[in-house]
Amino acid sequence: MAERSLYHTYVRNENGLVGESYVEGNQGLALGVSSSLIDAPGTNPEQFIAFALSTCFNATIRIVQHREGTAEDSQLRTRVDITRDKIGYKFIVDAQILMPSHTREEAQKIVTQALDECPVAKLLKENENVSFRIVDDFTDEPTLGE
Amino acid sequence: MAERSLYHTYVRNENGLVGESYVEGNQGLALGVSSSLIDAPGTNPEQFIAFALSTCFNATIRIVQHREGTAEDSQLRTRVDITRDKIGYKFIVDAQILMPSHTREEAQKIVTQALDECPVAKLLKENENVSFRIVDDFTDEPTLGE
Repeated sequence: MAERSLYHTYVRNENGLVGESYVEGNQGLALGVSSSLIDAPGTNPEQFIAFALSTCFNATIRIVQHREGTAEDSQLRTRVDITRDKIGYKFIVDAQILMPSHTREEAQKIVTQALDECPVAKLLKENENVSFRIVDDFTDEPTLGE
Repeated sequence: MAERSLYHTYVRNENGLVGESYVEGNQGLALGVSSSLIDAPGTNPEQFIAFALSTCFNATIRIVQHREGTAEDSQLRTRVDITRDKIGYKFIVDAQILMPSHTREEAQKIVTQALDECPVAKLLKENENVSFRIVDDFTDEPTLGE
């Protein structure tokens, strides 16, 4: 059977970092855009990636927790760094997962399931610059030298 | 030499699809979140991924065009579909690139360079469900059966 789309959306950018990117149609969301490398207001691509991963992966963890009948306690915090690459720039993505009501072992089992189910994790997890870590606290240890 | 972070940001999600995800600190952006699979207002992960790719890849194309001294004319439209996967769900990401002032051959050279430079493209391009296409018009042909 052919794959069937359950939903789709279009987001358009017409002017690079000038002005907005916007969701087409009556969904209506438009966001002013910027870059971390220029001094101008707006949401930058690092933030969009972090919004996608924090939202989708935490929602997926909650689905797994609900299914398992365990405490639905997870919090997700994604750090995205930008650094120079051999060509252009690259992002370093670090997803920090907090599950205060679970042992490390329980949390790891839940995260393993969520990694197999979450569509954003599926897009990102094979990348060497993307990590998923269960943490005891959200700390600000730098991912790279600063 | 160790890699040096040029910038970083944190985005947090504390309640799955209930409420908001937000950028930490004085950057201040908070967005109500939702899922394409439930009937509730808010930005969904499909839209966040499409915002990231449309914004970053079009900005990178414009940088390449500027460097080459050619018309800075590109527009980017990203379609994201969600479909059932063997386990959970998956996204199909289709980046449509319009460069009306360029021949297909010129456009392809520019896109090839941008794929080597854009940090969001670097995160996504190796995935079998992600495509980058130069188009003559933005059309709404479905990526999958609907």
